[in-house]
Amino acid sequence: MTTVGILGGGQLARMLALAGAPLGLRFLVMDNVADACAGQFAPMVVGDYRDEAALAEFASRVDVATFDFENVPAESARWLASRIDVFPNPHALAIAQDRLAEKTRFRELDIPVPAFAAVDTLDGLRAAVESIGTPCILKTRRLGYDGKGQFRIRQASDVDDAWAALGAQASKVGLILEAFVNFERELSVVAVRGRDGQFRAWPLTENWHVDGVLSASLAPASVQPRMRDEAVDYARRLAESLDYVGVFALELFCRGDNLLANELAPRVHNSGHWTIEGSETSQFENHLRAVLGLPLGDTRMVGRACMLNWVGELPDARAVLHESGGHWHDYGKAPRAGRKVGHATVRADDDGALAETLVRVGAALNRSAQVEPVVARLTSR
Amino acid sequence: MTTVGILGGGQLARMLALAGAPLGLRFLVMDNVADACAGQFAPMVVGDYRDEAALAEFASRVDVATFDFENVPAESARWLASRIDVFPNPHALAIAQDRLAEKTRFRELDIPVPAFAAVDTLDGLRAAVESIGTPCILKTRRLGYDGKGQFRIRQASDVDDAWAALGAQASKVGLILEAFVNFERELSVVAVRGRDGQFRAWPLTENWHVDGVLSASLAPASVQPRMRDEAVDYARRLAESLDYVGVFALELFCRGDNLLANELAPRVHNSGHWTIEGSETSQFENHLRAVLGLPLGDTRMVGRACMLNWVGELPDARAVLHESGGHWHDYGKAPRAGRKVGHATVRADDDGALAETLVRVGAALNRSAQVEPVVARLTSR
Repeated sequence: MTTVGILGGGQLARMLALAGAPLGLRFLVMDNVADACAGQFAPMVVGDYRDEAALAEFASRVDVATFDFENVPAESARWLASRIDVFPNPHALAIAQDRLAEKTRFRELDIPVPAFAAVDTLDGLRAAVESIGTPCILKTRRLGYDGKGQFRIRQASDVDDAWAALGAQASKVGLILEAFVNFERELSVVAVRGRDGQFRAWPLTENWHVDGVLSASLAPASVQPRMRDEAVDYARRLAESLDYVGVFALELFCRGDNLLANELAPRVHNSGHWTIEGSETSQFENHLRAVLGLPLGDTRMVGRACMLNWVGELPDARAVLHESGGHWHDYGKAPRAGRKVGHATVRADDDGALAETLVRVGAALNRSAQVEPVVARLTSR
Repeated sequence: MTTVGILGGGQLARMLALAGAPLGLRFLVMDNVADACAGQFAPMVVGDYRDEAALAEFASRVDVATFDFENVPAESARWLASRIDVFPNPHALAIAQDRLAEKTRFRELDIPVPAFAAVDTLDGLRAAVESIGTPCILKTRRLGYDGKGQFRIRQASDVDDAWAALGAQASKVGLILEAFVNFERELSVVAVRGRDGQFRAWPLTENWHVDGVLSASLAPASVQPRMRDEAVDYARRLAESLDYVGVFALELFCRGDNLLANELAPRVHNSGHWTIEGSETSQFENHLRAVLGLPLGDTRMVGRACMLNWVGELPDARAVLHESGGHWHDYGKAPRAGRKVGHATVRADDDGALAETLVRVGAALNRSAQVEPVVARLTSR
């Protein structure tokens, strides 16, 4: 009997536990809140990730540990890794947690990235804006997600406002200035690497964000084979350089024929949720297979799939359940503004059927704006 | 928040809970043993199904109740149904629990059945054997499953042995004598009926048993459309006559162009496990959708699928996980002779690929005999 420990008890941990049950796995989830939604299907240790007693209890009850939450303090991950197997390794986690280290790694690996510069002071920010040009974005190096901890600088005169908003973070989590990329599309590669170095990627996914939060994903994305190969190659290089084990997502900006790496998410990823119904093996199962040293599952698609995120509150499930390829995922979380509370995946055999289903679902749920860009892509490709 | 109560905490309850989590459901499982495997993923009430205090606690904590175990006493089901919604209804459960009532119902509905007769005494048995002819099978009317509680009568002189083996049961659970059907194939219809009467069936499944326990299932079964329509029509008639709500299986014998009903299993069924990966909607999800009055999901197949049962102990998962369409289901149960401890489902796009995969899996696991009849069917149809 193998028990997998998961640091963080949100929907990712929940879906990992549901995917791991058929493999005969047990789970133990650690979270700092007692009502974390993964706790509905797995036992929990409630405690702060920095609390050594709680971590020690967690470590004593699991065979291997992994993450639902990428911002688990790297030192907690290292402390755990000195006692039990931890995947991905704490070094990979630490790099992914720090936008500066991450982008530096991209550059070292010849993975194209937008121009960037570390920022420590207001004067440093001015110099960086001058060198990178506007528009650009000031971001915290660490602890930012879903568009939080960011300030867009449209012109040089915005520098003071940007510093007022984020300057205090310079000495805490660090700051980075990044060129603003006027991208046409956002893509992600969701991929998995095993303990033996085996590497597999799912078909590329196109993503749409609203207010910095993922709104919809479409797989497969329509990209030229050359770009797809390039994107997968970036993901592979990155995983190998970090000796990464498990599932991760590499987010990319796409402009014309060019790809630019945006960021690495060192965990199962929202843009891979469609793999539950849309692929022979889901990202959740393959993450567990990787972490446990089991053979990786096939990442081929079955048809095509669109994932719609439910943010804030759930719409009525019936509109989705009425559809032949409609699948519902309620995370068991209380509604709250900005919170990811569930998603739907719509699967179909071809683009036309998928577009038709999305139009019906969008209309029934009064969310036509959410499905519109996906439908436009499906009907134009 | 809706909590579904499940009476019985085995692998069926476990797979129901795993399928229901994405629908946002909570579960409460009642079983008379504390280590029932569904308890690894759902909270439990441990108690005997006849213990009114335990049943009352169970009823107070759930919104609707259903079954993993078909032999929950019908009076317990009725007691519950007087307090909360129970699906399938206790009357349907009671009929399915009693081979005599079940076969009488088949006959009333013009569903062909093997000759049968109720048996109360040794003299009655003699008369029944004379009227039905040999070979025939003496069975308990209730509480038999997986070939238990049965005695095959090859010739009239076996009657005394048969009575010695099962006669004591006549006054307890009743006895029935059935003609022995020298069938060529065993088929099952797994179907679902909603609270609104909507009815859907999955493609027919062919089943192979070893020592009375299901060994392998293949879907879709190769049958003429007329026979398929007939089988589905039997299932529909039965469900409507019982006002059945939820998933059930109708087991059929097939000889030439003729179908004979064998029995009704009033629950999700082992021969429908392939639907988890092989169908747009699994039997587990559709059972929950039916019980909750949600729209039923599409029962179409995705490719073709073979399920292999693991009885007694689990073989090495790797041989299955190495295969592109290989999916593993470990029920989290301790090994024990005769116990169903898991299954694998192999899915492929066509018969040839499925056969090849099964041959490899059979060889790798030293279980060629288990896959052989399925491979023979796949390569001959």
